[in-house]
Amino acid sequence: MTKAKDLWEDALNQPKISKQEFKELEPELRRELVELQQELRNSNLSVAVVFAGVDGAGKHEMVNTLNAWMDPRGIVTRAYSSKDLAAKEYPSFWKYWRDLPTAGQLGLFLSAWYSKPLLGRVHRKLSENEFQKRLKDIQEFEQTLSDNGTLLVKVWMHLDKKAQLKRLEDLSSEPETEWQIKPGAWENWGMYDHFVEASDKIIKSSAKASSPWVLVSGKHRYARQVAVATALRDAMKERLKNPPKQTGQSKSSWDKKMKSCRGSLRGMDLSKELDKEIYKSKLKKLQIRLYQLQHKAQISGISTVLVFEGQDAAGKGGAIRRLVQGLDAQQYQVIPIAAPSKIELAHHYLWRFWKHLPHRGRVTLFDRSWYGRVLVERVEGFAQPAEWQRAFEEINSFEKQLVDNNYVVCKFWIQIDKDMQLARFEERQNIPYKAWKITDEDWRNREKWDVYDNAVDDMISLTDKLQAPWVLVEGNDKSWARIKVLETVCDQLEKALKKL
Amino acid sequence: MTKAKDLWEDALNQPKISKQEFKELEPELRRELVELQQELRNSNLSVAVVFAGVDGAGKHEMVNTLNAWMDPRGIVTRAYSSKDLAAKEYPSFWKYWRDLPTAGQLGLFLSAWYSKPLLGRVHRKLSENEFQKRLKDIQEFEQTLSDNGTLLVKVWMHLDKKAQLKRLEDLSSEPETEWQIKPGAWENWGMYDHFVEASDKIIKSSAKASSPWVLVSGKHRYARQVAVATALRDAMKERLKNPPKQTGQSKSSWDKKMKSCRGSLRGMDLSKELDKEIYKSKLKKLQIRLYQLQHKAQISGISTVLVFEGQDAAGKGGAIRRLVQGLDAQQYQVIPIAAPSKIELAHHYLWRFWKHLPHRGRVTLFDRSWYGRVLVERVEGFAQPAEWQRAFEEINSFEKQLVDNNYVVCKFWIQIDKDMQLARFEERQNIPYKAWKITDEDWRNREKWDVYDNAVDDMISLTDKLQAPWVLVEGNDKSWARIKVLETVCDQLEKALKKL
Repeated sequence: MTKAKDLWEDALNQPKISKQEFKELEPELRRELVELQQELRNSNLSVAVVFAGVDGAGKHEMVNTLNAWMDPRGIVTRAYSSKDLAAKEYPSFWKYWRDLPTAGQLGLFLSAWYSKPLLGRVHRKLSENEFQKRLKDIQEFEQTLSDNGTLLVKVWMHLDKKAQLKRLEDLSSEPETEWQIKPGAWENWGMYDHFVEASDKIIKSSAKASSPWVLVSGKHRYARQVAVATALRDAMKERLKNPPKQTGQSKSSWDKKMKSCRGSLRGMDLSKELDKEIYKSKLKKLQIRLYQLQHKAQISGISTVLVFEGQDAAGKGGAIRRLVQGLDAQQYQVIPIAAPSKIELAHHYLWRFWKHLPHRGRVTLFDRSWYGRVLVERVEGFAQPAEWQRAFEEINSFEKQLVDNNYVVCKFWIQIDKDMQLARFEERQNIPYKAWKITDEDWRNREKWDVYDNAVDDMISLTDKLQAPWVLVEGNDKSWARIKVLETVCDQLEKALKKL
Repeated sequence: MTKAKDLWEDALNQPKISKQEFKELEPELRRELVELQQELRNSNLSVAVVFAGVDGAGKHEMVNTLNAWMDPRGIVTRAYSSKDLAAKEYPSFWKYWRDLPTAGQLGLFLSAWYSKPLLGRVHRKLSENEFQKRLKDIQEFEQTLSDNGTLLVKVWMHLDKKAQLKRLEDLSSEPETEWQIKPGAWENWGMYDHFVEASDKIIKSSAKASSPWVLVSGKHRYARQVAVATALRDAMKERLKNPPKQTGQSKSSWDKKMKSCRGSLRGMDLSKELDKEIYKSKLKKLQIRLYQLQHKAQISGISTVLVFEGQDAAGKGGAIRRLVQGLDAQQYQVIPIAAPSKIELAHHYLWRFWKHLPHRGRVTLFDRSWYGRVLVERVEGFAQPAEWQRAFEEINSFEKQLVDNNYVVCKFWIQIDKDMQLARFEERQNIPYKAWKITDEDWRNREKWDVYDNAVDDMISLTDKLQAPWVLVEGNDKSWARIKVLETVCDQLEKALKKL
């Protein structure tokens, strides 16, 4: 606490800068920023600048200044309001994920993720506990951005109580500027002490986060412009020069740690099967049940995310088709996941999945998913050990956000054995219109069966959470697998509907 | 009319296909589709398949079939409902633009752009006039897609009155399938003759459109699957083999046609200027006026699109900054337009602008815009003559949709003379932090001054429409230009608010 307080006072005592001094500092600052922007453009880095603080401290002006000083074609500015109808359909962080800058770009964020928790706590709409929970969510969000190639620059623009009063009085004394005082501004000023208290806590909590706050006094125009620009310059310079090194655990120490959970899949009874006639009758009944449940879920605004993973030829596509056959086309989307495109590679690896979350009341079926990070990307070396090793927690956090927002999340691992895969590969290869489904890559993956097996074991052991458990599906008999998938989805939907 | 009727009857008399025949046809059809999809993936073409027709004719089943037969990773399926909150913020075609397939992809569209006009006319919610207007809008939409690299395959799936009755009776006779009958299905059947009447008109109107309808009887499952798949195969094969040749007018015949409107810019009085003190006081007052108007516009849901075009260094950025200084950051977005990215190049050239349209009640300022198609892309040869020559009408149609949806559209051409540009280039080049703004390209463009001049003349003469007129801004004096821009925006907003 003490440390944050000191910083706070230092910031508020930032000396004034005269017009003359500013004129001397400005050209060099601008030149450096422009050059760094050029360097950024050719890098894998993206920069997100988050502005927070009190009204009247000059946040908006600073955003305009940066847009004027740098090349606006490399800058994306976003300011959030409660009027974003699309955003209401999704978890609260969705809109920030949507707007994250691409690699090479600078994103400027106003009234973003700190805004609601701060105001909520100031006006006592959030309890201290809820407030702390929000701050924890923010920390996780920032940590995963930072870990995955985004430089976060957090700028807190502050005014002391007297200075804020003077700003409000100055504005209200002239009919020409009175309009700039937002509704609630005086009330907020009356809450000044609450503001400082909540701000303190935010600053303090970020001491543990991946990026510290830059505290800037909004009192003097030139001083605040120089302070923000300097902080941005320094942070970009440092990060471009010294990209953080991320070292993951070695293979041997990782394997040792995970030893106890290896081999669990081998315990599955893959001989389970279903008689063709029973299958047909069950399928029909389950499809009707699913339609009725999904109809209710749509009315109740319950969204569903279904994840399908499994070996090549495990039967993911077939299970998905039996699921959607009975649904209205408006109610669902099937998203097949292939290798990421260039624009997807220029973002956080979860970005492309956030994009496809279902609207309220709908279903998205992911044919392969974010688990690619800890399966194919791990095994094939597309992700570094540090990257896939931290992905387990990142994924848990992502899914927790869905569940916290009343999404139904079902994750299916469909398991077949090696002989069954071979039989299905050969069958496909012998049918001209199915041969395209089998590529050299599939045969290569097959050779790494055991390596994949371990990766799957690790995945299940580290991401099998109460809120989003894995369902292991015995896949040797397609009928059995399809019915198990359908039954699970129906049961989970029913459970969610009962909770309402 | 006769021709359409004949087609109709032919379609309904499609012979049944036995299971045995189907089993013989299916493998070859699937193989061909998969191969064509592979060819598509490596082409600049995108394919949009639109399904329309009566309930129960098997549209949804067909979409699932195509997803099963082809590689779903190259297919995007979209079905529309009135519950898409985001779409309500924009003109009605926005959601289709958002979802258009990328080059190399296949898009399957259900309950899409034909759905509302058809149902609206059947239930007499649309007058014949309104219905015809909607069909005309659709024709324009399809024409511009088709012209710009999308193969449209339009599938009308039909049932005769008796067959539809039987389908409904079959479904309702079993408790297991009764749920499949949608609310209003019986009522719709009662309107069967209205359906046929409106469908006739749709089919007929498309005779003039870029792509004819494929009429398919939904009566027999195998027959309809074969009919749709065959039509898709044939259309793709033909288009991939014979890409349409588009020949534009030659330079000389174009110049001849446009001769009378050339030189208009030269008539502008660029000596207009504003005293510095008057400028300052006017600027302040106009920014307040703008803030107040925009506040009302936001409440009233009036969206605004501002387009800034002008020579390099004409002062677009400066004018934009003066406009947004007084606005809330949540109310606007500045979108600087640079060369299109790869993903943008894989779409219709208007796609990236549709993406950035403002939400209801907000403002988007485009720093350069879709007019690049008829300026830089024309002059530098990035667009073929046929492409930029038809772009004028495409742009008029785009802007008309905005205006029809109560958008305020202001288009500014800021004009400076050659000496002023030179002076500003040199000034920029001598200031280290501004030198990046001047590139070799800017000097090269400058050498083509007269060529650009002609392109601007053509642009203004062909896109200066009553609903979205050009405002020519004398830009030699920056103060004059900025005030003129601000005044125009205020006046237009005021006019729009008065109309409510």
